[in-house]
Amino acid sequence: MYVPPHTSLWVWPMLYGIGIINAEKSEFNEDQAACGKLCIQRCEFGIEEEWLTVCPEEFLTGHYWALFDGHGGPAAAILAANTLHSCLRRQLETVVEGLLAPQPPMHLSGRCVCSSDPQFVEEKGIRAEDLVIGALESAFQECDDVIGRELEASGQVGGCTALVAVSLQGKLYVANAGDSRAILVRRDEIRVLSSEFTPETERQRIQQLAFIYPELLAGEFTRLEFPRRLKGDDLGQKVLFRDHHMNGWSYKQVEKSDLKYPLIHGQGRQARLLGTLAVSRGLGDHQLRVLDTNIQLKPFLLSIPQVTVLDVDQLALQEEDVVVMATDGLWDVLSNEQVARLVRSFLTGNREDPHRFSELAKVLIHNTQGKDDGATGEGQVSYDDVSVFVIPLHSPGQGSGGH
Amino acid sequence: MYVPPHTSLWVWPMLYGIGIINAEKSEFNEDQAACGKLCIQRCEFGIEEEWLTVCPEEFLTGHYWALFDGHGGPAAAILAANTLHSCLRRQLETVVEGLLAPQPPMHLSGRCVCSSDPQFVEEKGIRAEDLVIGALESAFQECDDVIGRELEASGQVGGCTALVAVSLQGKLYVANAGDSRAILVRRDEIRVLSSEFTPETERQRIQQLAFIYPELLAGEFTRLEFPRRLKGDDLGQKVLFRDHHMNGWSYKQVEKSDLKYPLIHGQGRQARLLGTLAVSRGLGDHQLRVLDTNIQLKPFLLSIPQVTVLDVDQLALQEEDVVVMATDGLWDVLSNEQVARLVRSFLTGNREDPHRFSELAKVLIHNTQGKDDGATGEGQVSYDDVSVFVIPLHSPGQGSGGH
Repeated sequence: MYVPPHTSLWVWPMLYGIGIINAEKSEFNEDQAACGKLCIQRCEFGIEEEWLTVCPEEFLTGHYWALFDGHGGPAAAILAANTLHSCLRRQLETVVEGLLAPQPPMHLSGRCVCSSDPQFVEEKGIRAEDLVIGALESAFQECDDVIGRELEASGQVGGCTALVAVSLQGKLYVANAGDSRAILVRRDEIRVLSSEFTPETERQRIQQLAFIYPELLAGEFTRLEFPRRLKGDDLGQKVLFRDHHMNGWSYKQVEKSDLKYPLIHGQGRQARLLGTLAVSRGLGDHQLRVLDTNIQLKPFLLSIPQVTVLDVDQLALQEEDVVVMATDGLWDVLSNEQVARLVRSFLTGNREDPHRFSELAKVLIHNTQGKDDGATGEGQVSYDDVSVFVIPLHSPGQGSGGH
Repeated sequence: MYVPPHTSLWVWPMLYGIGIINAEKSEFNEDQAACGKLCIQRCEFGIEEEWLTVCPEEFLTGHYWALFDGHGGPAAAILAANTLHSCLRRQLETVVEGLLAPQPPMHLSGRCVCSSDPQFVEEKGIRAEDLVIGALESAFQECDDVIGRELEASGQVGGCTALVAVSLQGKLYVANAGDSRAILVRRDEIRVLSSEFTPETERQRIQQLAFIYPELLAGEFTRLEFPRRLKGDDLGQKVLFRDHHMNGWSYKQVEKSDLKYPLIHGQGRQARLLGTLAVSRGLGDHQLRVLDTNIQLKPFLLSIPQVTVLDVDQLALQEEDVVVMATDGLWDVLSNEQVARLVRSFLTGNREDPHRFSELAKVLIHNTQGKDDGATGEGQVSYDDVSVFVIPLHSPGQGSGGH
């Protein structure tokens, strides 16, 4: 078992709400969560140009929340929940000197090899937050490697999505790989903080890979997109299609090879990559193959997240401003607007309750179970695992930032 | 010389303004323009499943404006100005049956092979405008092929950007490949209708290609981005960098191979692909190589435009609503806001002038020549060719749409 370093720095709990419900798709919950303080040690170059930990008592402190939605079992999600924060801390520690400077220096050592180096950095518009984004990107990749090694060593399989929020130096970073979602809910505003990565949203990237490496489809799939899977009766007809380079649609005369199973098939929630997977980014799945074939999924999957930055210090924060992070089980049945309505009505009605954020998370979960309590008037049912974090951005006495 | 078919259908002139100034970088102007009526014949499947032109008198009529900014001579821009509209008409004619239907049918013949076909098309959200987008994408590709053949046959060289506006069925389509720009200027609104495609804006796509096909760099260039070109003194130091998969920045220890010339070098207007080209999309350049090497530029260039759609029929059009299309020579020295100010003040002050759109185009050109007339208070000078179209969207007696 992989043991994350510095585990002692990982502390619980914080003021936030979490709700999780298990749809009992597998013995263990395929949704996994993690959160805690992120304590980054300050390091410096020593005389020998080696890393030295200086002032170990002097920390840069952040906060971390993460949701992992597993598939093919909970193994990858559990590993990710145990590992990703350590990868992130390590990545941040390797660049912390750059983070503490007003602007990241060209050279991490702070040496100025060329007198106009600061100007070059300025012209590229490189800010401290770009180092955090880079650290998140690298941490996801590193964690994916760890999961690949661990699963192989233990003979386990599976993959997971990953949605991470990090509060650091007055900014909230939201990194997403998969189909979970984070939104900011304020009194007069809903701001979407992540995009979903599915076979449909990443169609062009996936089709392009199949165009460059046709051997990945082993002659079993067609790269082209049609409104439905074609059949013998369509042969010779001109039907709607699009290829990797097209945003628009055109018509093509159907050939025999177009009758193969499509690389991306189905619509919306039913869309599948190679008939197998509903997401196009995430961690794990190193061993995953199309049923009864040797065709691998992993070459089409990205472990890199998309990172958005919320400048919390620039918001005139109010007490009921929260970030809602949830796996697809929530968003399948509740829209952003429905969630925002539930958030606003619950929080304004429960101002005195010290546990209101946890209660709110449970209310959101409750609303995915088809109990029409009048708040949404919908009563749609989620048959998936559902996990929710409710993160208040405003903290009395602390000003702003995660807490 | 390639002769576009149906040339007789190409008619001039229309109510619009055009201004062009030659910076005399070459004997012929590297900027070229074209515009005219776009008359699309209605065709149908005959009994033998062959295309028959039916009702030749029944046209679908649109309007077309195009700007081409050449480099390495005017040859590609001239060819594009003579060719692209014919490619577009041909592409539109192959799908015109789909364009005329309320929703494009799954089968161009209109036959319904599967009773739920309309539902599949509906679920994919495919609309008539997607066929126009597809036709524009295909037309750019076809035109690029023609230019490649023509230049090779005539022993000429060069490439060009392409910015095209097409008014059709109440919508304005803006297709862009390169660094020209189109904006909508209204009394209270500026809407950007195109994005620029340069080595900087397409960094990740270009770096990824070099990652997949390292042989394209022939060992002469480094794929990685650094704030400046590295030199011997940087060896062994940890410097800021990013690779194809990164949006953020990180630090890496400099190795000898990092000292090579960067794949993308320079900032802003000075950014160059392989030290050679300032744009990453366009037509032509099939023969272009890095000076004194055999390294080709073309594999990194896309001829596919990005297409945006403006629903003109949905705008409450006012008489002074115009689209301004211009090559980079204008936008290098005037911001969108400066152009909008010039447009608004000129048009409101010249309501009675029947030639005011042409006059306005000339005013815009004039303002790139460093003559500070007080309108912008800037007086910056463009040393590039500059071409401008001013297209009024509102036409008295016609309602809306191109005219």
